Amino acid sequence: MKAGVLYSGGKDSSLAALMLSRDYEVELNTFVFNPARALPGVEKAAEALGFPHRLHTFAPEILDSAVESVIACGYPNEAINMVHRAAIDVLCREYRVVADGTRLDDRVPMLTRDEVQRLRDRCGCSYVRPLLGYGKPEIARLSERLLKVQYGETGTLENGDYEAEIREAVKARGMNPSVFFPSHHAQSLVIGRA
Amino acid sequence: MKAGVLYSGGKDSSLAALMLSRDYEVELNTFVFNPARALPGVEKAAEALGFPHRLHTFAPEILDSAVESVIACGYPNEAINMVHRAAIDVLCREYRVVADGTRLDDRVPMLTRDEVQRLRDRCGCSYVRPLLGYGKPEIARLSERLLKVQYGETGTLENGDYEAEIREAVKARGMNPSVFFPSHHAQSLVIGRA
Repeated sequence: MKAGVLYSGGKDSSLAALMLSRDYEVELNTFVFNPARALPGVEKAAEALGFPHRLHTFAPEILDSAVESVIACGYPNEAINMVHRAAIDVLCREYRVVADGTRLDDRVPMLTRDEVQRLRDRCGCSYVRPLLGYGKPEIARLSERLLKVQYGETGTLENGDYEAEIREAVKARGMNPSVFFPSHHAQSLVIGRA
Repeated sequence: MKAGVLYSGGKDSSLAALMLSRDYEVELNTFVFNPARALPGVEKAAEALGFPHRLHTFAPEILDSAVESVIACGYPNEAINMVHRAAIDVLCREYRVVADGTRLDDRVPMLTRDEVQRLRDRCGCSYVRPLLGYGKPEIARLSERLLKVQYGETGTLENGDYEAEIREAVKARGMNPSVFFPSHHAQSLVIGRA
């Protein structure tokens, strides 16, 4: 059975893909707002894992909604959740099984159990989170065991996180993204298998 | 790293053990109230999986509390949760990583995220649920792929479920357990690897 994994090139989505690949035929899927955005780091991470990798572009109104949500709320949580759901919705039209790297300790993005069940009822799609049952120490242990990872702050590492493009779009509206986004947000990029 | 898995011989805990065994050294642990209770079906299931299997007996007051909770509440959910936590507490004293077969769709037993984090803070123990990110259709797909399973109602299948012994203890107090327990409760027993 094929499984479409939402993929940023980071530690969590890479680990989820690797663990899922023991039982499913994994394809990696990265979403961008700007179709001209190059993601060589993410491409290399996907290559290192050895799974097919596809790039998708969000409909343009998604970025507008995200920016408006960030500005209206004063923080990005709702926007990140909305963008994440939009990506899952696209993948649910293409795969019977859709997965991502959501962990037990994640706050955002996070679908509730009811939302997962509605997704299943509405489109017959299984939304799977291989890392949901694992806390931070075990994720660290597993990623050390299976992956080579580079760490850094948002902006210093070029992965397929939504945040970079939403920050840019906030800036393009003449506002300072630092007002809305947490100042420290650790990012990771996979550079190989361990 | 060694992981102690709470094991009933059923489909879910067997699947969790198999999936976990790809990254951890799995040991299966079954809890009973009555130390004289024989569990040949569970022993055989553990043997079929090929992992070491240990039997534990609960402290006698656990059964009394469970029966009192069932009678006081009028349904067994709180009791099952309490007994499950007692088993996890025992395993947390013996393993750094403790796991079980809890799935996304389970209502009981189910620890909240806060309870899992408290367990980690209190005793440094990782409580892991390899199936938590998987819904019913994927659990069915995976268990069909990896296991041979026998299905039946409580009472017709002899697995290591807590329910059978709590029912007996309720009966021993002169009450009819059917008043408190749901009338249909599907059970499973693993009889081999697929």
